[in-house]
Amino acid sequence: MNAAHLSLAEHAARLRRRELTAVALVDACAQNHARTEHRLNAYKTWDGTRARTAAEAVDTLLDQGMDLGPLMGLPVSVKDLYGVPGLPVFAGSDEALPEAWQAAGPLVARLQRQLGIVVGKTHTVEFAFGGLGVNAHWGTPRNPWSPHEHRVPGGSSAGAGVSLVQGSALLALGTDTAGSVRVPASMTGQVGLKTTVGRWPVEGIVPLSSSLDTAGLLTRTVEDLAYAFAALDADSHALPAPAVALRGLRIGVPQNHFWDDIDPSIAAVVEAAIERLAQAGAQVVRLPLPHCEEAFDIFRRGGLAASELAAYLDLHFPHKVERLDPVVRDRVRWAEQVSSVEYLKRKAVLQRCGAGAAQMFDDVDVLLTPTVPTSPPRLADIATVETYAPANMKAMRNTAISNLFGWCALTMPVGLDTNRMPVGLQLMGPPHADARLIGIALGIEALIGQGHALLGAPDLS
Amino acid sequence: MNAAHLSLAEHAARLRRRELTAVALVDACAQNHARTEHRLNAYKTWDGTRARTAAEAVDTLLDQGMDLGPLMGLPVSVKDLYGVPGLPVFAGSDEALPEAWQAAGPLVARLQRQLGIVVGKTHTVEFAFGGLGVNAHWGTPRNPWSPHEHRVPGGSSAGAGVSLVQGSALLALGTDTAGSVRVPASMTGQVGLKTTVGRWPVEGIVPLSSSLDTAGLLTRTVEDLAYAFAALDADSHALPAPAVALRGLRIGVPQNHFWDDIDPSIAAVVEAAIERLAQAGAQVVRLPLPHCEEAFDIFRRGGLAASELAAYLDLHFPHKVERLDPVVRDRVRWAEQVSSVEYLKRKAVLQRCGAGAAQMFDDVDVLLTPTVPTSPPRLADIATVETYAPANMKAMRNTAISNLFGWCALTMPVGLDTNRMPVGLQLMGPPHADARLIGIALGIEALIGQGHALLGAPDLS
Repeated sequence: MNAAHLSLAEHAARLRRRELTAVALVDACAQNHARTEHRLNAYKTWDGTRARTAAEAVDTLLDQGMDLGPLMGLPVSVKDLYGVPGLPVFAGSDEALPEAWQAAGPLVARLQRQLGIVVGKTHTVEFAFGGLGVNAHWGTPRNPWSPHEHRVPGGSSAGAGVSLVQGSALLALGTDTAGSVRVPASMTGQVGLKTTVGRWPVEGIVPLSSSLDTAGLLTRTVEDLAYAFAALDADSHALPAPAVALRGLRIGVPQNHFWDDIDPSIAAVVEAAIERLAQAGAQVVRLPLPHCEEAFDIFRRGGLAASELAAYLDLHFPHKVERLDPVVRDRVRWAEQVSSVEYLKRKAVLQRCGAGAAQMFDDVDVLLTPTVPTSPPRLADIATVETYAPANMKAMRNTAISNLFGWCALTMPVGLDTNRMPVGLQLMGPPHADARLIGIALGIEALIGQGHALLGAPDLS
Repeated sequence: MNAAHLSLAEHAARLRRRELTAVALVDACAQNHARTEHRLNAYKTWDGTRARTAAEAVDTLLDQGMDLGPLMGLPVSVKDLYGVPGLPVFAGSDEALPEAWQAAGPLVARLQRQLGIVVGKTHTVEFAFGGLGVNAHWGTPRNPWSPHEHRVPGGSSAGAGVSLVQGSALLALGTDTAGSVRVPASMTGQVGLKTTVGRWPVEGIVPLSSSLDTAGLLTRTVEDLAYAFAALDADSHALPAPAVALRGLRIGVPQNHFWDDIDPSIAAVVEAAIERLAQAGAQVVRLPLPHCEEAFDIFRRGGLAASELAAYLDLHFPHKVERLDPVVRDRVRWAEQVSSVEYLKRKAVLQRCGAGAAQMFDDVDVLLTPTVPTSPPRLADIATVETYAPANMKAMRNTAISNLFGWCALTMPVGLDTNRMPVGLQLMGPPHADARLIGIALGIEALIGQGHALLGAPDLS
């Protein structure tokens, strides 16, 4: 069975019509996993046996006409920062955290109440503190789009996008503090949503930044994102957002910050997509987005997360600091140098920046930018802290802005760059416009096509 | 007209029956103000003319049978941290803040929508950062209970309690970050409520601590507190909390922290009150309150407020730091030495302490302690930083705990100490038990009597 071109909604419908069994779906995912995992390394923990048992239970219930919700029977990968009962949480570190961290937070509980099937825990950058997806303890997942070289998958949700390409899951839970959902989604040709901070609960997720952490989703298409978002956004299972008409849509394209030193082939692909939107009747306005440089300068100096992670580790796992992945350790140590006054000023300035920049949404419905300005680097090219640090900073440069501003954002694939690596288009909206942003992305997807049609499929042989 | 022994509810009823005019009430307050203000110095800004105009409008409306809410026509003093349209905000500093700070926040808006009459802005410790009520720029209000020596009024809401004793207002708005409502209320023989953090909005109030600031009320009796709290707690104007029966009430009396180095005459007055509650059928349990010392040690080292105030000043009024009242300046400067990691650890530890200690409320309904362990110091005895600092810390020692724990608390007068200065009994309850706490205090007040009956009145001649 090839599940690649069936939407989540179609899978759900077939399960309910009993044309497809949850066991067959989980078995297909397990086969896809088994075939390529030795090379792709998407998962810290694969939980095939329990997933199959859960699938059997789902089939029994569906046979009896029981329907527990839109995600019932659908295979889901979960970033190894989330607590999932019965599965160890490493959070990318060298040893499992105490068992208490396995407790399900509200989001995993919503997933499991619907009998969505967790197939395993995907790799993450240690404590999610990095944008390229590397992990010195457990190895860096391989970007499936680069058959001959080990290119990074993006991070920190490093295994999440890979799990979707691999076909071992149809939906992936990630987290996004500066781009950790959108960067891996963009780099692996998937769709990724960063929710508005505070919209989805982060209890039950190992924290990186108590101020900016958000839970998010990676999916194969915007259509799937709309479906999964509606299923998880509230216990009420709202309907997926409807597609927004492109004609008359006011699209802002910031000219500053997001295009600096961009790979020309990425710029060309994104510009071509924007041009198609204009041809379809959208009003495209080129404009400066204020406060980007001010906010990003704070991010460059450690932002809020470095101090917040350092305090968390110091309180909970002081012994871990010495054993941190080197790319994480230096930034955690350096946070001690940031004074409390400086930290609080950063927080206040970021709030002011976000509120000021959001006035832009009086004039435009959405802001579009390239998601990541560079092709996913070769692992060999970022092997030292000196080469890693600037590449990491650049990978998150365009995504971090919406985190720093407190907005919502998503990425969707729009083509391939000169390395034949996926290119993402980023949509940014004001706080709590999540559903509307998905609706706009649906309109764009309807025009330009879904990822699998646009990009084709990578060679996983 | 002597308004001293009429409750807010009785005033409101007489206004509505037109047995009393708002103009007469405001005129009486103005006369009380004029008679003693030169000595007591309660107000930074007296606004008698506008108050009288407002009172005329209230009378016109009441004549026509219009009722805008429970506080209509009642004279209210407002701490000079709150924005009140048309009145300068000094926040205890040496010059008025920019006019934008005059905008009404939600709480003042609730007061003004009911046509509660603001008679003026009361003195505060500069940026509310102190518990004794001193102010080097504008002078320290005089505690009316000490006719022959200048004793402090308590702070930071330094003029709030004095305004009630003076009879220039029947209700006072204050703020409480570590005791700034309860300490002045206790030291001037009034009732004071510190609301649960987050329950009442702090927008429109110059911030001291973005984490711990709360708006609160000072009143002459618990009966008045119940009335005013219900009027301001929501736009819905809920009814005042009913008195809670004392028989069977489970009262916890912490034996640690709150009684250390206490003035013996204060201890005796508070113990006598607790003894009367036991005689009336309350179950009094002596117990240790966990985490007090851990939390107070954080407070002693600057807590959260020092860093938060320093960041606020640095962002908004950097030029003011050099000109701060010396008792404030040193602690603001010192905050630069607190690292961001230390600050965030403090915050996390305090949350843990508060949640842990709140388990106590599984076993008791309320915790009772002395509000302030010392008699209000003579101004002359705290004239240097060396004598001020320990006295300031001790004044807030018992009140700060409920701020640090995120609880609600109130103080009510229970007697006089050997200096014939008022003694307060503090009630502490878990988060969001504000109304219940007021109900318990009503039960206690019904047993032991209201402040004016218990303490008599100070000599204001």
